[in-house]
Amino acid sequence: MSVTDELLANAERYAESFDKGDLPLPPAKRVAVVACMDARLNPYGVLGLSEGDAHVIRNAGGVITAGERRSLAISQRLLGTLEIILIHHTDCGMLTFTDDAFKGAVQEETGIKPDWSAEAFSDLDEDVRQSIARIKADPFIPHTDQIRGFVYEVETGRLREVK
Amino acid sequence: MSVTDELLANAERYAESFDKGDLPLPPAKRVAVVACMDARLNPYGVLGLSEGDAHVIRNAGGVITAGERRSLAISQRLLGTLEIILIHHTDCGMLTFTDDAFKGAVQEETGIKPDWSAEAFSDLDEDVRQSIARIKADPFIPHTDQIRGFVYEVETGRLREVK
Repeated sequence: MSVTDELLANAERYAESFDKGDLPLPPAKRVAVVACMDARLNPYGVLGLSEGDAHVIRNAGGVITAGERRSLAISQRLLGTLEIILIHHTDCGMLTFTDDAFKGAVQEETGIKPDWSAEAFSDLDEDVRQSIARIKADPFIPHTDQIRGFVYEVETGRLREVK
Repeated sequence: MSVTDELLANAERYAESFDKGDLPLPPAKRVAVVACMDARLNPYGVLGLSEGDAHVIRNAGGVITAGERRSLAISQRLLGTLEIILIHHTDCGMLTFTDDAFKGAVQEETGIKPDWSAEAFSDLDEDVRQSIARIKADPFIPHTDQIRGFVYEVETGRLREVK
């Protein structure tokens, strides 16, 4: 039995007790969260989110690239969100390599150099500020006055705001 | 008080009862989930995931673009995941517009035409299959024999596999 099969058994149980079939499409709290994909960071647990509350956008690092700006533009323009919460975290995998090293290793193995940036970073707080700056500079995201960035501490479960 | 402030109060409570400070960086279940950012779709609830279990990657539509391929390459190459679960869902916002219409509306308002695809789609099952095909065609994602795609039904809470 694969892990996927095991998780599908959980999904059966979720459906059996499901009672949220009439939630509207737009997020109730009008907020979009952008967080790292890290397994230890559970935005639902940390922020106390329930089904229907918020858009959750995630990727390796919780970085802001063209794809995240696309998602945020759709979130705000079509579905009415107004606030943005960014979450990076301690002990992040993105701190453990450089773009050059990662892309070099991939090229070594596959014979092809990735045509994207790995988006590695060496300073968590600085990358949170960088992410905020990228959103504020985007011409397609209308609401950028309520963006706040945080570092989640995987050791303590705390969320620390980046100023 | 902003919604963000309200969610930060939840984060304080999460930290107070936190007891998962020694989880390892690599996901325990060696699986990566790619899902839509939709507020009604809670991958933790549906799949029964806990902190430490799985990478969770999300965007508008749960589509596969360059950014998601970057995240999956990092997930598998650096952090050991082997299986991929894709989740689209019924009543998705991406079904309600076309790329041309969305980009035209943005251009009308901002004077600038977005230099990205909105990644709208008109057929859920077909876009799930498209996403699987994009991953399998990627030269940088090593493990592509355990990819399965699903449509989450927001009306019933059920996960339906796309064949």
